[in-house]
Amino acid sequence: MASYLQTAHPMKHAIDILSTHPHPSPAGSTDAWTQLIKATADCAVSCQICADACLAEEKIDMLRRCIRSDLNCATVCEATLKLLITQTERDQAVLKAQVEACAKACGGCAEECEKHAKMHAHCRICAEACRACEKACQQVLTTV
Amino acid sequence: MASYLQTAHPMKHAIDILSTHPHPSPAGSTDAWTQLIKATADCAVSCQICADACLAEEKIDMLRRCIRSDLNCATVCEATLKLLITQTERDQAVLKAQVEACAKACGGCAEECEKHAKMHAHCRICAEACRACEKACQQVLTTV
Amino acid sequence: MASYLQTAHPMKHAIDILSTHPHPSPAGSTDAWTQLIKATADCAVSCQICADACLAEEKIDMLRRCIRSDLNCATVCEATLKLLITQTERDQAVLKAQVEACAKACGGCAEECEKHAKMHAHCRICAEACRACEKACQQVLTTV
Amino acid sequence: MASYLQTAHPMKHAIDILSTHPHPSPAGSTDAWTQLIKATADCAVSCQICADACLAEEKIDMLRRCIRSDLNCATVCEATLKLLITQTERDQAVLKAQVEACAKACGGCAEECEKHAKMHAHCRICAEACRACEKACQQVLTTV
Repeated sequence: MASYLQTAHPMKHAIDILSTHPHPSPAGSTDAWTQLIKATADCAVSCQICADACLAEEKIDMLRRCIRSDLNCATVCEATLKLLITQTERDQAVLKAQVEACAKACGGCAEECEKHAKMHAHCRICAEACRACEKACQQVLTTV
Repeated sequence: MASYLQTAHPMKHAIDILSTHPHPSPAGSTDAWTQLIKATADCAVSCQICADACLAEEKIDMLRRCIRSDLNCATVCEATLKLLITQTERDQAVLKAQVEACAKACGGCAEECEKHAKMHAHCRICAEACRACEKACQQVLTTV
Repeated sequence: MASYLQTAHPMKHAIDILSTHPHPSPAGSTDAWTQLIKATADCAVSCQICADACLAEEKIDMLRRCIRSDLNCATVCEATLKLLITQTERDQAVLKAQVEACAKACGGCAEECEKHAKMHAHCRICAEACRACEKACQQVLTTV
Repeated sequence: MASYLQTAHPMKHAIDILSTHPHPSPAGSTDAWTQLIKATADCAVSCQICADACLAEEKIDMLRRCIRSDLNCATVCEATLKLLITQTERDQAVLKAQVEACAKACGGCAEECEKHAKMHAHCRICAEACRACEKACQQVLTTV
């Protein structure tokens, strides 16, 4: 399944459409910014899937905090993504504060998922997605 | 920018994590289902970007309906994606009804975007994302 | 706490603003429609709180399905709310399909929460919110 | 319509359910926190309705920035609400950062809506909802 999805090119239209904006914002042309758009989309969905997988684990009692941080991290990543794609009349101060919240949510969720990474593959992969997104947030914050 | 994003593999973790669920649902193993997960993610973000680009167009007066259907289609695709990744205690009747709503939202948005496709590249690409998602919905509906 | 919130008038601005639309849609003037706007907002937040409370219960093992249906019902209610407030260029077919999905999500979630209503007050109240929203959906569907 | 909705008590279940959590967080008992839950719900929906009303205004050309900030403010308020209702394993640092982003989003949106308040009732009411939410954020930030 994984290989099928990978060859079929996820997010193709979303990526192509980014550069068609009539008045692209300056940030729209940087690699750090486009990298963060990808990272928040990837992390939001990864966290939702990890939460759902945790809900089915026999030892769910150990995973309460993991489910909670997965759900909240997904929420914050989704909101951040919606602000990131804004090129019309972008409010830089709001975007910066939201990316800071996203870095914190991803860092906290990664820390929790890493505790279960040896036991559960979904926690291991989710932690990687969170760390990648946290790093992409920090990269953008150096330029804002 | 587009080529950079394409080589760097969007949604990598989200795709890898899908197959790590402790009790995968039967539908989780079909190509149609995984294809729709990709399509809803792609379409939700494409519609958000198209709405934002329309907001910056000089002739915004002609694009009111396009902006509205972009925003609503994004909303419906996001909700559908969240139900699609559910493998724990999935409620098949709710999922089916939501995928039906998604097919309608994508079809309606595609129809509107197609009217502006010659004028605006973002509308053309967004219409393609909507049609791909509408088709992926219909594919899943034949199997539910 | 509850009495404080109740006197302080939740959703005051959201309710006042509804009638200021320059071109209100016909449906915007019916009680059934305004009732459903309230019900989806109430149900979405109630389901999120019930899921969070279930996550803290000692016997979480029994509540997996309840958490899952709470989260999905919240997702569907939020999306439905966003379509319901649309008075500009509303697509009636999409709205109808989304309200049908919402009725199913609320009905399914109520059924699950009712199983735990004697044990957990949050499940009892959440079931009531879901039934109220299911009924409000059905009321709107008779008029669309 | 407004009076009907007001008597019928919006958010009744969501408010009642808040105090049924098995392990309420300390913050869950303060008025500032419950006030912010109400304010984010009210502001998120008000902003969505204002954006939709702006989309139907004849002079939409003047309202591009207003529509954009309405949509983004709604997004940030919704995400903040989802974190605020978390009483299980709450991550205080993430919540604080998200409330800071919410204060900024509400302040920015209020400023834009106030420019159109004399012309459009929806902008006037939306600005009030944003200012109320901004203030409620600041109140919570003094206690976190």
